[in-house]
Amino acid sequence: MAVNETERRAMTRALELAALGPRGVNPQVGAVILSPDGSVLAEGWHHGAGTPHAEVDALSKLAPGAAGGATAVVTLEPCNHTGRTGPCAVALIEAGVARVVYALDDPGAVSGGGADRLRAAGVSVDSGEQADAAHAIIDGWLTAQRLGRPHVTVKWAQSLDGRAAASDGSSQWITGPEARADVHRRRAAAAAIVVGTGTVLADDPSLTARDGDALFAEQPIPVVIGSRPTPADAAIRRHPKPPLFYDTHDLHTVLADLHSRGIQSVFVEGGPTLASAFVAQGLADRVLAYIAPVLLGGDRLALTDIGVASIDAAHRLTVEEWLPLGADLLAIAHPVLGLEEGVA
Amino acid sequence: MAVNETERRAMTRALELAALGPRGVNPQVGAVILSPDGSVLAEGWHHGAGTPHAEVDALSKLAPGAAGGATAVVTLEPCNHTGRTGPCAVALIEAGVARVVYALDDPGAVSGGGADRLRAAGVSVDSGEQADAAHAIIDGWLTAQRLGRPHVTVKWAQSLDGRAAASDGSSQWITGPEARADVHRRRAAAAAIVVGTGTVLADDPSLTARDGDALFAEQPIPVVIGSRPTPADAAIRRHPKPPLFYDTHDLHTVLADLHSRGIQSVFVEGGPTLASAFVAQGLADRVLAYIAPVLLGGDRLALTDIGVASIDAAHRLTVEEWLPLGADLLAIAHPVLGLEEGVA
Ligand SMILES: NC(=O)c1ccc[n+]([C@@H]2O[C@H](COP(=O)([O-])OP(=O)(O)OC[C@H]3O[C@@H](n4cnc5c(N)ncnc54)[C@H](OP(=O)(O)O)[C@@H]3O)[C@@H](O)[C@H]2O)c1
Ligand SMILES: NC(=O)c1ccc[n+]([C@@H]2O[C@H](COP(=O)([O-])OP(=O)(O)OC[C@H]3O[C@@H](n4cnc5c(N)ncnc54)[C@H](OP(=O)(O)O)[C@@H]3O)[C@@H](O)[C@H]2O)c1
Repeated sequence: MAVNETERRAMTRALELAALGPRGVNPQVGAVILSPDGSVLAEGWHHGAGTPHAEVDALSKLAPGAAGGATAVVTLEPCNHTGRTGPCAVALIEAGVARVVYALDDPGAVSGGGADRLRAAGVSVDSGEQADAAHAIIDGWLTAQRLGRPHVTVKWAQSLDGRAAASDGSSQWITGPEARADVHRRRAAAAAIVVGTGTVLADDPSLTARDGDALFAEQPIPVVIGSRPTPADAAIRRHPKPPLFYDTHDLHTVLADLHSRGIQSVFVEGGPTLASAFVAQGLADRVLAYIAPVLLGGDRLALTDIGVASIDAAHRLTVEEWLPLGADLLAIAHPVLGLEEGVA
Repeated sequence: MAVNETERRAMTRALELAALGPRGVNPQVGAVILSPDGSVLAEGWHHGAGTPHAEVDALSKLAPGAAGGATAVVTLEPCNHTGRTGPCAVALIEAGVARVVYALDDPGAVSGGGADRLRAAGVSVDSGEQADAAHAIIDGWLTAQRLGRPHVTVKWAQSLDGRAAASDGSSQWITGPEARADVHRRRAAAAAIVVGTGTVLADDPSLTARDGDALFAEQPIPVVIGSRPTPADAAIRRHPKPPLFYDTHDLHTVLADLHSRGIQSVFVEGGPTLASAFVAQGLADRVLAYIAPVLLGGDRLALTDIGVASIDAAHRLTVEEWLPLGADLLAIAHPVLGLEEGVA
C-alpha cells in the first residue's frame, strides 16, 4: 500500500519532532499517530537515553484504545528489542495500530526486525519515506554506530613546511582570520573538543566555539588527555560545559568512554603529540590541515612521529577539498583505505 | 611622427629575428633596416656576447652608404655605450639612418641614452612599438639584470606534513605523475638545474628535462654545489649539457658565476639542506612546493632550518596559485617582501 499525502505530511512533522530530541547514545526519532481518517491523534519524540522511544512517547499521550486502527508515522523503524524500554513493535501492536510508515531501517543488529514483527502481527508496513532527511538527522549517530566509537576529526594548523610553531614556540597567528573562523564553526558542530595536556599547559586554551567575541549556541564538551594535572585556574575550567579529564594515553579507552556518554563526534585540536598518536593509530577519520603560506623550518613539527618507517607505509589520504580560506588553504581529507590502516 | 604599418610589420619581423639569438649575458635583440620607400634592406640579430649588436649586424650586410635615409626598426633601444662593440646609436648615425623605431627602452644605466643621442643627431625616433612582445622575449634577461644574478626558483616535493621522505629515506614516489611531469616542463624552461652533493650521492639523478621517455629539446645546465666529489660514473655526467661543479657553500658566489655565464634562471631541486640554505639567505625568488596527500611524520624534513627563531621572523609567502596536479597540489609562491628578507 503506497504512502499517501497525509502520511507524507505526518513524516515531515515527525522529522521536526525528531530534531527536538538530544543528540546522544540513542538516535533522535520522532513519531506522529494518525487516526484512520488522517487527523493527528498524538505526537512524540525520543527525549534521550532512559526515556521512552518516540512511538511510545506518542502513544502515552492517548487514552487506552484510542490508537485502535490508527497509523503510526515514525522516522526510524520501530525497535524489536527489550532494553530500558520494551520493544516498540510490540507496543504498537498492543495499542491496536493498523499501519506503520517509517523512514529508515533500524541499523542495529539487536534492535532491528521490528518491521517483520509488525507484519507478522498483520500490521501494514511501508518504509523509505523521506529516508534521506531521516538519515541526515541521525548521521552522526549512524557513523558512531558503524565505527563503534565517536567519529574523529584531527585538526592542525601548519606552515607550508609542516611546522606548528617557530623555534621559540611562538605560533600566534600562523593562519589568518578566515581559517580561525572556520575552526570555530567546526568546533561548534562537534560534540567534544579534545586536546593533550601539553597544549593545555602551553597555551591555556578556552576551547570554546566562538563567533567573533560571542559564543556559539552549541558548545563542544572540552576533553583533556594526559596525566599531568590541569591547573585550577585554567581557562578550560570556565568553559560552559564541564570538562572531562582522562589520565591515560590509551585513546581507545577515551573514545569508548566518550561514546558511552553519547558523544558522536570529536574534534582533536592537538597538540602535535596527541594528533600524531591519533593518526598513528588509524583513529583519524578525517584530517583538517590548515596550511599557512609561511615557511618556518626548525623542530616544532605539526606532526611528530606517526610510525611510518618506509614510503610504502605512508598514511595516504584522499583530499576531498583543497579549500582556500583567505591567504591560507584547508586540506580536508580522509584515509585512502579503511579506518585502521594507511597503505600505499 | 607615428609608427606606420610598414614599420609595424618590420617590428614583428625584428622580434622573430631577436628570438634566433641565444639567451645569455646579453639580451636577445633583432633589427630590420627599411629603405625610405619601405622595402627591407637588411636584417640582423644579436648572436651572443662578443658579437655585434643587432643593428650593427644588419648594417654590416649593406654596402657603405646604402643605409642613407633609411629607417632602423629594432626591438631594444640602441645602446649608447662602448663595450665589446662601439655604441649602436653612433653606428646608426654614421650610417646615415634618418629614423629609428624601437620597442623597449634600454634598462641599462650604462648603455641607456641611445635615443637621446640619436635625436641630438637629428634622427627621428619612436619607441614603445610592440613593447610587450619585446619584453616577453627578454623577460629572463631583464629579471637577472634587476636582481644582479639569475632568478632562483626553489622547488621541493613534500608530504602534507612537510616531509621529503620516510624515515628510511624512501621517497619514490611521494607525488604522482602529473606533478612529476610538471617538474620536467619547468626544468626545461630553466637555464640551469641546481642540486647539492647530498642529492647527487643519495639519488644519482640524471637532472634532464624529460617529456615521458624523450628528452625535451631545451635542457638546463646541471649544477652541483658542495665539496664532496661527484662519482665518475654519476648519471649527471651523461647529461647532454656538461655539468658545472662548485666546491663551495657560498651561494652568492655560485650565482654570480652562473650569471657571468649568461644563465638567467636557475631551478634549485634540493635536497633539503641546499633548499633551506637558499630560503634562509633570501635567495628564493619563487617557491614551488609540490604537496602530496600523504602523512609521513619522522625526521626527513623537506626544509630543515631556515633561521627563523620566532614567528615574527617567518618567511611569509604570497601564494600566486594553489594548483591541483592530479591528487597533488602545487603551491606557487614568492616572498611577501623584497628579495633579501621575509618578515611578518
Ligand atoms: N599548530 C597547531 O595546530 C597546534 C595545536 C595545538 C597545540 N599546538 C602547540 O603544540 C605545543 C604543545 O605540544 P605537545 O605535543 O606537547 O601537546 P599535546 O599533544 O597537547 O600534549 C602532549 C601530551 O599529551 C599527553 N598524551 C595523551 N595521550 C597521549 C598519547 N596517546 N601519546 C602521547 N602523549 C599523550 C601526554 O601528556 P602527559 O605527560 O601529561 O601524560 C603528552 O605529553 C604547544 O606549543 C602548542 O602551542 C599547536
Ligand atoms: N623531496 C624532495 O623534493 C627532494 C629533492 C631532492 C633530494 N631529496 C632527498 O634529500 C636527501 C639529500 O638531502 P641533503 O639535504 O643531504 O641534500 P642536498 O641539499 O642536496 O646536499 C646537502 C649538501 O650540499 C652541500 N652544500 C652546498 N651548499 C651548501 C650550503 N649553502 N649549506 C649547506 N650545505 C651546502 C653540502 O655538501 P658538502 O658536504 O659536499 O659540501 C651539504 O652537505 C636525499 O635522500 C634525497 O632523496 C628530496
